[in-house]
Amino acid sequence: MAAYTFFTNPMSRGQIARWALHEAGVDYDQVLVSWDSKPPALLAANPMAKVPTLIHHSETGNKVITECAAICAYLAEAQPEAGLGPSADESADYFRWLFFAAGPVEQAIITRSMGWELPVERQAMAGWGSYERTIAALEGHFEGNNYVCGERFTMADVYVGSQVDWGLTFGSIPPNEAFVAYAERLQARPAYKEAKGIDNALIEESRK
Amino acid sequence: MAAYTFFTNPMSRGQIARWALHEAGVDYDQVLVSWDSKPPALLAANPMAKVPTLIHHSETGNKVITECAAICAYLAEAQPEAGLGPSADESADYFRWLFFAAGPVEQAIITRSMGWELPVERQAMAGWGSYERTIAALEGHFEGNNYVCGERFTMADVYVGSQVDWGLTFGSIPPNEAFVAYAERLQARPAYKEAKGIDNALIEESRK
Repeated sequence: MAAYTFFTNPMSRGQIARWALHEAGVDYDQVLVSWDSKPPALLAANPMAKVPTLIHHSETGNKVITECAAICAYLAEAQPEAGLGPSADESADYFRWLFFAAGPVEQAIITRSMGWELPVERQAMAGWGSYERTIAALEGHFEGNNYVCGERFTMADVYVGSQVDWGLTFGSIPPNEAFVAYAERLQARPAYKEAKGIDNALIEESRK
Repeated sequence: MAAYTFFTNPMSRGQIARWALHEAGVDYDQVLVSWDSKPPALLAANPMAKVPTLIHHSETGNKVITECAAICAYLAEAQPEAGLGPSADESADYFRWLFFAAGPVEQAIITRSMGWELPVERQAMAGWGSYERTIAALEGHFEGNNYVCGERFTMADVYVGSQVDWGLTFGSIPPNEAFVAYAERLQARPAYKEAKGIDNALIEESRK
């Protein structure tokens, strides 16, 4: 048995977790999950039965990790040999932008895609304020930095970068120069290509 | 100058960050920020000018941290002497529930409080699925565990616990036994009492 069991669907955020697994360089057993049939092992691990869900068969027992950003952060810690966790000097940016992408960016994009409107008087209460301000803050970071932690790729880029990469593909993030250049840097990574290659082949196959 | 500069407003999520600062046991200079006037130092650190924003004047330079959950995770790493970061065995739960609270829980609560409805066919796309499923998953964890990481309090409890504690106060989380007992465990902590005491006194003062 591989060290990790990975429950996923190729047409889901599972793509983010697969990329993280390939960046970490670990072996994993894949369990493909369809929308209408959830394996008992997945339900036992995650009552919401969401994909991706990752189980680490560690030396001290099984560890369940859900939420894409958490999977990235966990793999960086559990596989220090990959060198993708933050140094002491990087951890402020690392956590700041991981949580900014998982919270405000995600909320801003979904709220906008659903056509929901946040009244101005509630903008101070909501962490994302407005779509425009959230995207501008993210863009500002990548105008001055090649990666989340400055000049070095870390596991935070798998998650933050996936938000940007998907957002550019689906039109939920504007094709501004800083975003496009960041996405291109990520797309050039061998682990990105490997992981996307597997998911794209699975999608292709399911259409036959 | 203290090691940290803390931009906050007592009637904001800044209460979470203050509690984290007291759990970490660090010195900080507080800068109170009103809704209609943002200090230039805050704008320089965080273009969204959100509170809380934390600046760590570290040995290698100033580090800016925004997002409450990121502030908790950062302080746990930057102040290892406080012993509130996760052990290798705890980090799966630590990151899983931090990101679950910052993402799905936050989204489920805001969506519900705004009266927005997520159509059933979009539930698979949205990380929180539905308010009921998200709250049930969180409750399930605390039915079997006293804290995010099992039996030991960590910095993840400051953030996840604040979501529960505030949710119980404002009615956005149901007063189920597991949630109430968890909140009571947190409210008994000296750092919680210290931090809330300061914010409550500031709120009292502002009403005079």
